[in-house]
Amino acid sequence: MEAFSDGVFAIALTLLVLDLRPPPVGRFAEHLLGDWQAYLAYITAFVTIGTLWAGHHDAFSRVRRVDATTLVLNLALLLGASLVPWPATLISTAIRGGRFGDETAAILVYAIVTVMIGLPYSLLDRHLARHPELLVQPGDALWLRQNSRSTMGTIAVGAVGGALAFVLPVASLVLFLLGPLAFIVAALLSDHQPSRRP
Amino acid sequence: MEAFSDGVFAIALTLLVLDLRPPPVGRFAEHLLGDWQAYLAYITAFVTIGTLWAGHHDAFSRVRRVDATTLVLNLALLLGASLVPWPATLISTAIRGGRFGDETAAILVYAIVTVMIGLPYSLLDRHLARHPELLVQPGDALWLRQNSRSTMGTIAVGAVGGALAFVLPVASLVLFLLGPLAFIVAALLSDHQPSRRP
Amino acid sequence: MEAFSDGVFAIALTLLVLDLRPPPVGRFAEHLLGDWQAYLAYITAFVTIGTLWAGHHDAFSRVRRVDATTLVLNLALLLGASLVPWPATLISTAIRGGRFGDETAAILVYAIVTVMIGLPYSLLDRHLARHPELLVQPGDALWLRQNSRSTMGTIAVGAVGGALAFVLPVASLVLFLLGPLAFIVAALLSDHQPSRRP
Amino acid sequence: MEAFSDGVFAIALTLLVLDLRPPPVGRFAEHLLGDWQAYLAYITAFVTIGTLWAGHHDAFSRVRRVDATTLVLNLALLLGASLVPWPATLISTAIRGGRFGDETAAILVYAIVTVMIGLPYSLLDRHLARHPELLVQPGDALWLRQNSRSTMGTIAVGAVGGALAFVLPVASLVLFLLGPLAFIVAALLSDHQPSRRP
Repeated sequence: MEAFSDGVFAIALTLLVLDLRPPPVGRFAEHLLGDWQAYLAYITAFVTIGTLWAGHHDAFSRVRRVDATTLVLNLALLLGASLVPWPATLISTAIRGGRFGDETAAILVYAIVTVMIGLPYSLLDRHLARHPELLVQPGDALWLRQNSRSTMGTIAVGAVGGALAFVLPVASLVLFLLGPLAFIVAALLSDHQPSRRP
Repeated sequence: MEAFSDGVFAIALTLLVLDLRPPPVGRFAEHLLGDWQAYLAYITAFVTIGTLWAGHHDAFSRVRRVDATTLVLNLALLLGASLVPWPATLISTAIRGGRFGDETAAILVYAIVTVMIGLPYSLLDRHLARHPELLVQPGDALWLRQNSRSTMGTIAVGAVGGALAFVLPVASLVLFLLGPLAFIVAALLSDHQPSRRP
Repeated sequence: MEAFSDGVFAIALTLLVLDLRPPPVGRFAEHLLGDWQAYLAYITAFVTIGTLWAGHHDAFSRVRRVDATTLVLNLALLLGASLVPWPATLISTAIRGGRFGDETAAILVYAIVTVMIGLPYSLLDRHLARHPELLVQPGDALWLRQNSRSTMGTIAVGAVGGALAFVLPVASLVLFLLGPLAFIVAALLSDHQPSRRP
Repeated sequence: MEAFSDGVFAIALTLLVLDLRPPPVGRFAEHLLGDWQAYLAYITAFVTIGTLWAGHHDAFSRVRRVDATTLVLNLALLLGASLVPWPATLISTAIRGGRFGDETAAILVYAIVTVMIGLPYSLLDRHLARHPELLVQPGDALWLRQNSRSTMGTIAVGAVGGALAFVLPVASLVLFLLGPLAFIVAALLSDHQPSRRP
């Protein structure tokens, strides 16, 4: 199951590059410098999927067996993850177009996709925490319960970002970038416990 | 062999997102709300491939060795699976276009692809059931025989959906969505036996 | 190394679907029925990559260690494999366009790609056969030498197909389809020795 | 972690083919012969990603455990690797367009992406070299330190290629192709130590 999930994450992440299109002939330098919105959307989506993969991999390194509930919640999570390139395109297209209403709509889709990932992910962690017979070590239940709570925090960030989109869409985008970056900084700060699997 | 199959399923599933295109500038909200056909086609194709992967993974967790027949039937199954993004595009384009004839044709292609997956899948399960020397446990033959029969049910659903396309195409689409969802509900209801491999 | 190669094969195979585009609104049935060239190109490319994967997987199930020569020849083989979707597009576009010269050119590209795959593949098998220290069992050298010779046959088929393209392009395409199909039939006929790995 | 990285490399490498588009109807032969820029960009990007994968795989075959720093540096490396198809498209579009300024800009983006890969890669090797507890054998630290230094060489090549783009863009492209080819030749010359994992 992890190979399949890893495949979906890796493909969704790599498909983002199809969004970076060549500029019109004769105006490469100008367009490449001006296209920072596309780069911001790319990096936001990249770190979102990248940190999602890292957390998912960490959680599943504690799982010994899977039941049907795990499978279904994981498919629901992958549904959201496979969608990420879509709001990424919407956001860069909207910012390039320069209409406030488009930007709000695009950011809202990103926020909804964030919740579509976070909700089944959090439920999955809780389900695993409640079924120690599925885990490598019964003590992993504690880690999963904490992870479930911090994933709930991701949903809150998604909701705030969605609300903010009606006032200042670019602030939402920065928020969506800061979320995964905070995850990365937190991981670096706690860098004493090597994970179980390479 | 499973890594290769998982790769094809994961890619076919993630390529579906290329079908969700950005709306015209200045009309994002309106178009995003109105594009429910594309979302319905996306979810139908996603759960089709997702449940196909889950069943395939479950079947191959019972396989110890593969012979050439297994390999060829699996390639035939993957041929159908790799095609799924095509009728998914056809369906959302057809519904958006609003012509009855287009919708019928698109749904028929989906039905044919369903049969192109279901037929080799069912034959594969029967072949494995008849060759216990390929299985982890001889007792798995029973499971595979039952699975072969329920896959035959999928083919019947495909045929009914194809016929229905001449009367009410959207009803076929709902049927194609309900099929995999029924599989998911059935899996959740029988959630006492954790599968052998994570 | 096999995971990486399998990934390239699976992606090249699944990208073929991007070639099947939705027909113009209102003319689905007519176009879908008339587009048999695209389906023929799809199936030819699919079975080419599919049988290539099967043979590659079979060869590498006999390999215990890899040296730099193996790595480089394998990368050369993957270069050809990753290109397959390109002549597949060329062929279906050319046949749709209906110009004899285009068809000849497209088929020639397919033939060149076939040789670009077959040549390093055959050299790879010979290299492995000459270095029993890289193999699981020294006796596998014989199998690899035979495989190298049959891959040389593939190159001959590519050359004949390329030459035939100047006279009757569609006959070349049929030849390119029959090659892998013959491989499949031969595999089915010799179906007594289950391969070593599932 | 390696499966995920391998997936990103394999997909980035295979997406390059989407850049090779069918020529206008009736002029296949002429366009296919004249499109050598696209082939040069394809091969340069292919061997860049291919040798990057080979080196990455070699490095991680020496890693027993990963910490958060490894994970983050690896994600940064993958960010660069996932971008490679973008400058590859830019370069072939620019050379086809024939404007000097476009070519300079496109090559500069390629050079920047090279540095975006080389910098975290070199830091990753140094980090691993400093933490023998993460390695399979403490003696691997020496190999990683040497690898870190040769990756720094890659960054230097990227910088020289970027500077050269202001004078003779095509020379930069040749340089970007020669870099990985030199890596391949060096690997072939030292072909006595089979790597640890197949």
